[in-house]
Amino acid sequence: MSDQPRIAHIGVAVENLADALAFYRDVLGLVPLAPEAVDGATIVSLPFGGPDIELLASATPDGPIARFLAKRGPGIHHLCYEVPDLEAALRRCREGGYRLVDETPRTGAHGRRIAFVHPKSTAGILIELTQAR
Amino acid sequence: MSDQPRIAHIGVAVENLADALAFYRDVLGLVPLAPEAVDGATIVSLPFGGPDIELLASATPDGPIARFLAKRGPGIHHLCYEVPDLEAALRRCREGGYRLVDETPRTGAHGRRIAFVHPKSTAGILIELTQAR
Repeated sequence: MSDQPRIAHIGVAVENLADALAFYRDVLGLVPLAPEAVDGATIVSLPFGGPDIELLASATPDGPIARFLAKRGPGIHHLCYEVPDLEAALRRCREGGYRLVDETPRTGAHGRRIAFVHPKSTAGILIELTQAR
Repeated sequence: MSDQPRIAHIGVAVENLADALAFYRDVLGLVPLAPEAVDGATIVSLPFGGPDIELLASATPDGPIARFLAKRGPGIHHLCYEVPDLEAALRRCREGGYRLVDETPRTGAHGRRIAFVHPKSTAGILIELTQAR
């Protein structure tokens, strides 16, 4: 476990997984991982060998990705930063007046402990914090 | 030089650099690099020790960042992928029908050779491609 925070992944909301995958396969030559179902979304990770891109397609008509697509259209949905101590980071968020989506950590993709910080308090970016392993 | 593409940085458009820096300094404990002026923007890099976050503030009332902020508000502006052969990647873009913002590479931040791909053809994301060193 490092003291240095790192960018874990970039979540991208897409209308159509096959269409979005084409650029990463044909231009960048990446091979996607198997799809995973989390929070009403189908997630496909693109392994860049560092932070990954996670393509997020809605698996339900009323889930968070479907609502994001309806409001904003396709594009970047969130950034995930890995931190050495998730509880301590959430405490610093509360002390700094940052608005939390998840007051306590919960289980996200790949079984990781995560919590989201609201974009209103972070320059327009939905931020996911995840515990380093 | 690796054959593997990697995420070089994430460009974030902000209204106010000091406000945006607070989260990265106070919650994540990062120390920003010195500001750099490129393309009518002031760029501050946050070194995550892998891909960086680049905070982008407009230095002119009519530059690309000012226009982005007026239209979309603050948030993620672009993703930069480093590729082993920029010319070959641009050729694959043309062959695949991807719309290029820059038909030929130009000089971007940190003196790197870059070219942008239009978001209309990449699931809503403005993509910067940069030549690996």
